[in-house]
Amino acid sequence: MTTAERPYSVIGTNPVRPDGVDKVTGRALYGADIRLNGMLTGRVKRSPHAHALITRVDASQALALPGVHAVVTFEDFPEPADPIMQTIRGPEPTQWDVERLMARRKVLFQGHPVAAVAAIDAHTAEEALELIEVDYEVLPALVTLDDALAPDAPELHDDGLANEIDGLFDGEPGQSPNVARTVELGMGDVDLGFAEAEVVLERVYETGMAHQGYIEPHNGTAMWNEDGKLTVWTSTQGPFGVRLALARVLDVPLGDIRVIPAEIGGGFGAKLALYLEPLAALLSKKSGRPVQLTMNRTEVLEASGPTSGIRSYVKLGAKRDGTIVATDIRLEYMAGAYPGASIAGGARAALGPYLIPHQRTIGLDVVLNRPKTAAYRAPGAPGASYPIEAILDELAELLDIDPMELRNKNAVTEGDPRSDGATHGSIAAHEVIAATLAHPHYRAEIQDPDVGRGVAMGYWPNGGAESSAYANVHSDGTVTLTTGSVDIGGQRASLAMQFAETLGIPYEDVNSLVGDTDTIGFTAATAGSRTTFATGWAVHEAALDIRKQLEQRVATLWGVSEHEVSYDPSDASVHGPDDKLISFKEAAARLPGSGGNIQGQADVVSTSVGKVGACFGAHIADVEVDRDTGKVTVLRYTAIQDVGKAIHPAYVEGQIQGGAVQGIGMALHEDYYYNPDGSMANASFLDYRIPVANDVPMIDTQLVEVPNPGHPYGVRGVGEIPIIPPLGAIANAIYDAVGVRVRSLPATPALILEELERLEAAGD
Amino acid sequence: MTTAERPYSVIGTNPVRPDGVDKVTGRALYGADIRLNGMLTGRVKRSPHAHALITRVDASQALALPGVHAVVTFEDFPEPADPIMQTIRGPEPTQWDVERLMARRKVLFQGHPVAAVAAIDAHTAEEALELIEVDYEVLPALVTLDDALAPDAPELHDDGLANEIDGLFDGEPGQSPNVARTVELGMGDVDLGFAEAEVVLERVYETGMAHQGYIEPHNGTAMWNEDGKLTVWTSTQGPFGVRLALARVLDVPLGDIRVIPAEIGGGFGAKLALYLEPLAALLSKKSGRPVQLTMNRTEVLEASGPTSGIRSYVKLGAKRDGTIVATDIRLEYMAGAYPGASIAGGARAALGPYLIPHQRTIGLDVVLNRPKTAAYRAPGAPGASYPIEAILDELAELLDIDPMELRNKNAVTEGDPRSDGATHGSIAAHEVIAATLAHPHYRAEIQDPDVGRGVAMGYWPNGGAESSAYANVHSDGTVTLTTGSVDIGGQRASLAMQFAETLGIPYEDVNSLVGDTDTIGFTAATAGSRTTFATGWAVHEAALDIRKQLEQRVATLWGVSEHEVSYDPSDASVHGPDDKLISFKEAAARLPGSGGNIQGQADVVSTSVGKVGACFGAHIADVEVDRDTGKVTVLRYTAIQDVGKAIHPAYVEGQIQGGAVQGIGMALHEDYYYNPDGSMANASFLDYRIPVANDVPMIDTQLVEVPNPGHPYGVRGVGEIPIIPPLGAIANAIYDAVGVRVRSLPATPALILEELERLEAAGD
Repeated sequence: MTTAERPYSVIGTNPVRPDGVDKVTGRALYGADIRLNGMLTGRVKRSPHAHALITRVDASQALALPGVHAVVTFEDFPEPADPIMQTIRGPEPTQWDVERLMARRKVLFQGHPVAAVAAIDAHTAEEALELIEVDYEVLPALVTLDDALAPDAPELHDDGLANEIDGLFDGEPGQSPNVARTVELGMGDVDLGFAEAEVVLERVYETGMAHQGYIEPHNGTAMWNEDGKLTVWTSTQGPFGVRLALARVLDVPLGDIRVIPAEIGGGFGAKLALYLEPLAALLSKKSGRPVQLTMNRTEVLEASGPTSGIRSYVKLGAKRDGTIVATDIRLEYMAGAYPGASIAGGARAALGPYLIPHQRTIGLDVVLNRPKTAAYRAPGAPGASYPIEAILDELAELLDIDPMELRNKNAVTEGDPRSDGATHGSIAAHEVIAATLAHPHYRAEIQDPDVGRGVAMGYWPNGGAESSAYANVHSDGTVTLTTGSVDIGGQRASLAMQFAETLGIPYEDVNSLVGDTDTIGFTAATAGSRTTFATGWAVHEAALDIRKQLEQRVATLWGVSEHEVSYDPSDASVHGPDDKLISFKEAAARLPGSGGNIQGQADVVSTSVGKVGACFGAHIADVEVDRDTGKVTVLRYTAIQDVGKAIHPAYVEGQIQGGAVQGIGMALHEDYYYNPDGSMANASFLDYRIPVANDVPMIDTQLVEVPNPGHPYGVRGVGEIPIIPPLGAIANAIYDAVGVRVRSLPATPALILEELERLEAAGD
Repeated sequence: MTTAERPYSVIGTNPVRPDGVDKVTGRALYGADIRLNGMLTGRVKRSPHAHALITRVDASQALALPGVHAVVTFEDFPEPADPIMQTIRGPEPTQWDVERLMARRKVLFQGHPVAAVAAIDAHTAEEALELIEVDYEVLPALVTLDDALAPDAPELHDDGLANEIDGLFDGEPGQSPNVARTVELGMGDVDLGFAEAEVVLERVYETGMAHQGYIEPHNGTAMWNEDGKLTVWTSTQGPFGVRLALARVLDVPLGDIRVIPAEIGGGFGAKLALYLEPLAALLSKKSGRPVQLTMNRTEVLEASGPTSGIRSYVKLGAKRDGTIVATDIRLEYMAGAYPGASIAGGARAALGPYLIPHQRTIGLDVVLNRPKTAAYRAPGAPGASYPIEAILDELAELLDIDPMELRNKNAVTEGDPRSDGATHGSIAAHEVIAATLAHPHYRAEIQDPDVGRGVAMGYWPNGGAESSAYANVHSDGTVTLTTGSVDIGGQRASLAMQFAETLGIPYEDVNSLVGDTDTIGFTAATAGSRTTFATGWAVHEAALDIRKQLEQRVATLWGVSEHEVSYDPSDASVHGPDDKLISFKEAAARLPGSGGNIQGQADVVSTSVGKVGACFGAHIADVEVDRDTGKVTVLRYTAIQDVGKAIHPAYVEGQIQGGAVQGIGMALHEDYYYNPDGSMANASFLDYRIPVANDVPMIDTQLVEVPNPGHPYGVRGVGEIPIIPPLGAIANAIYDAVGVRVRSLPATPALILEELERLEAAGD
């Protein structure tokens, strides 16, 4: 009986998370809790201007202040590494990263670092910031897509550097010099498709720039020792990525850098990039002391990486029976001050749930004077999916088809082509739709006036990549399991559960730890909904490694050949000839005296052993719109999702609930408001409004378990997709409630009121 | 060409130690440097009496003192674990350990803990100690061997507990109840041997109780979390041993305990046992806070574990040509308050260098009211070897044979039987003797009056046991190597060197780390001169594991079969057909994109793969004796030693020099002086006098490199043996200088003066 066929004893249960006690007692060490002997406190001097030339930086007065140990500027970064090391460490230009971390000639967003200081305490560091003199020649700020795309717009990256990067700023003639990249996805023949269409809709949509809103601000603590070894403690989703980036921008061998991940108070993609770590490292090198840097909330909002605002031009053609035959889409992404990384994924996800024979999607990455965007949960997808889900709602109304039935008619199935040219594997879009159609929420009648219901779907392909695991069997049969995956969503538990399942031992016997870049093999970041899938595979392989070693050892103990013994996880025992049997615990106790203890180890590139399972979600939202204030209240919300096999169902539900709430925030509240000079008008959690508990109802979830045949335990990534459907579902629900087609999110009270007034004026 | 045949590129060089910078800048974290948020400071209430019944302990007033968070006594230790777990965790009685850590009914040595307190700071903790009321019924102290062995001596362990332990306190009828164990080693027929002898000598010798004198006092910091997980930071030679002992005395699963070894400021065997760690753990459990305990120097001397003082009765028979035919030896070891662990090793080492056909050595372990002895560098051997080396000097004089020639005549060679019944493997006793005879120091003439020269030999079998290694290849070709061996004598370097040699990569590319009990597989303690040998073997195997994986991966890359490629460490490259070649660095860079990074791993029980190589040392000492004061000054000192292959020759020399100086301390200065009530009279480094720099000359060393064929790099343990010969060499030199046969060490000025006066009185 293979592992997958065996009824599970651990998988599917909801055990307590190993980090729970520390988190509720306040004992967990987040990045800012790190304390080192002799540690200095650092602060960053940031540009007040969104776009300006730096004409002078003078830190002499700051350095003269008692208690100030070091000041760093762009000058302190080393020259780019030699080309061979550069290739080993990554293909992207180092100088590029460096300028984002610390401005060289020009500042490109408000909050762009121009210097950093390390001092004996925070007060001295802040006083020193005031003493660093920076002169600017202020330039006009390009704050909106229109600013940046205007034919006569100034070129943001006018120093030639950006043009060295292949494919960047090589826009078509006549295109704005601020289009950093373009991507085009498609299939079929769009002109032919629209020729076949019986109805064609064309709309323009906009979504705002939204921040991940993690509670814990960025931080970085570094000790650059006199022997050349650099140790960095930081709250990150990917310590190995931090190590690589540090190696590149600081020109240090990988083996000389140790990155120790702290507990992380939320990341959602934003804690993949570096901000403070290299500055802390350079300040430590100059001062000879450990240095800690932390951001405050204003710095987080102004100068870390939100997700792109998007303007979408959508043209859709369909038959009268609801069959979609063609789409032609142009997505304009706000990249921020440097090129972003969301357009390809966003463009791919947009049409993911549907089979559209003729389609073209063009994505533009537009640089402008805002902070460089970063990954945010299903990067680029919510803003790209919303226009499709909204236009489908219009199509359903036009053709008088139930909106979920319309989606059912067009939904993809195994073997269908994907927008990115690949072919769908085992997927469950139709199962999710069926569950939605059957759901009591979908069938419940709406009685109240000004209350409406909307639905939307989402698709996310999920990630794979490399993960390592190392497991250490103790002589009392307990095991310590170390992986390289930072625990954001409960991975310590979900990984220990898969490991325990493969061995057939209790979850409680597995002590699950997160390693650092020295104590565990390379592991890609906790991102892309990959961890429970890919690191889960690695821990499964490490457990199989232990089973194999146990079989060999027990065969020797019994004096039989190895093929006569086999490990059976259903009773956690090695079985041999003549009904011989020894349990895992008994065997563990005998290991020290019979050849030594056992460690299991695995380094797995999950995509080369298995197949990532894509997943689908359908959300149902009931909203009430206050016609006097324009305020939209979410009354009921249900998220139905294909989750593969839910390892720890309560965490899966938590992921879905968290994602849905963030999507609701994008739909109703969150945006970056800029003054014309490029300064941010709402850089605090009072003014940048993420949903709080009383903004949302309980998010109901329904897990549709269709195991992924490409994973030993059927896992599909579940964490990203739930942020995608809320935008469309809420927008469609608003229409259902008060007849307003919202084509710009967030749907703020002001916007709703304006639309209501426009409707009224139109005599509706 | 096998690894061993290849000329070495790293082994035999003297690279910089990885921990050097941290140690000279003060940045290295020793046990007492650990700082945890909210940490409390603990102190231990100790018995002022050496032998007493405890009639009352009342901590109520201490607990009422503001700032006091917890008090623990014997009552706080759990009942012994269930028998099965007990078996898994170790064969020895838990209760026994517990009573040593914290007195139950009786205190057995001055400084025996009776309670411990945790408070907000050290001052409060010390004030609280005064408030803990303990009533004693004082009993007579058994301080000397005569006290303990007197036929009417009271029984120290009179509570029946000790009698439950097999083999303990089951002395022969008529023997003192304070003889805890006896061992007997031997071969041949002693009566027959003495019948063949032409000369017979009988002497009685004594050595003092000596302390290891490490600079860093014992410490223990513990955090016992509400979730049941216990983390302990401590300065220890063996974190896995600490974990096992904690599991036993606290009844906690191994997987719930993490022991993180701090940097260690000397151990010499004494940092194998636990003192403060369990008390810190219980105080943490009670207070809910991290707790740190440290000893002061007085506590270290009074209440940690020195080595046994020994009284030896030696009878030796020889032929007139110098051939030794028989020995009959009785060694009485001071065990301290609980049975010691040195008698077997000491007895075995005593006659190690010599082939004696008829021999009997009986060792007695005698409990008395002194601190329980612990391991000290070649445990029990210096005091047991000195009588042999001293009596051989008398024999040489009697027979008019050069003392080294006498030793040469009787020295063991491969295939000879060992005192413990085993057979000598590849050894180099004769090579060491030849080097000594040829050494300029041995041949230099002595001109000055009252200056004399002595020689002595030593033998130590060395250790093997289990070690783990884990190595992590980074994509720039640097490697992080983690082992479980605490670094006392430079192991981070000597292990990285062997690892680098097997891969053929530079030493500087290996980042060498010490893991903790969770991050690395089981590894026996850094003790028994095993680490460079046994963990060296593990890192060699881990490097071979990497070579094999590289071969497999490169074969796949080249599309050839695995047997067509091979890794050659001489150019650190994988070679294939048609002169294909890829270097380690290039291959490392290609791993991430071709199946993932590589980790090498090994868990090796060295004695089951190879053979521990015993070693021999011969020391030459020139001393001057001041006839007016009795002071002995060491003028010149040379240590010649068989070291196998010296991995890092400078560290090998350092080991030899350090051991020799400690032996000189035992010979001339160090002893425990007790008042009749059992209180220690010299419990400070002012009064307990270890040699300081101006007490000793530069210790010259000569490394005799006879590789151990039982190890891939020929390693023999080198750390313990150099402490053995100094006692005999110094005693023999004193006789050569002024004609005094010293039969009791240390040879203090008072003792020398007394002997000189006795000689003078005898008309010499």
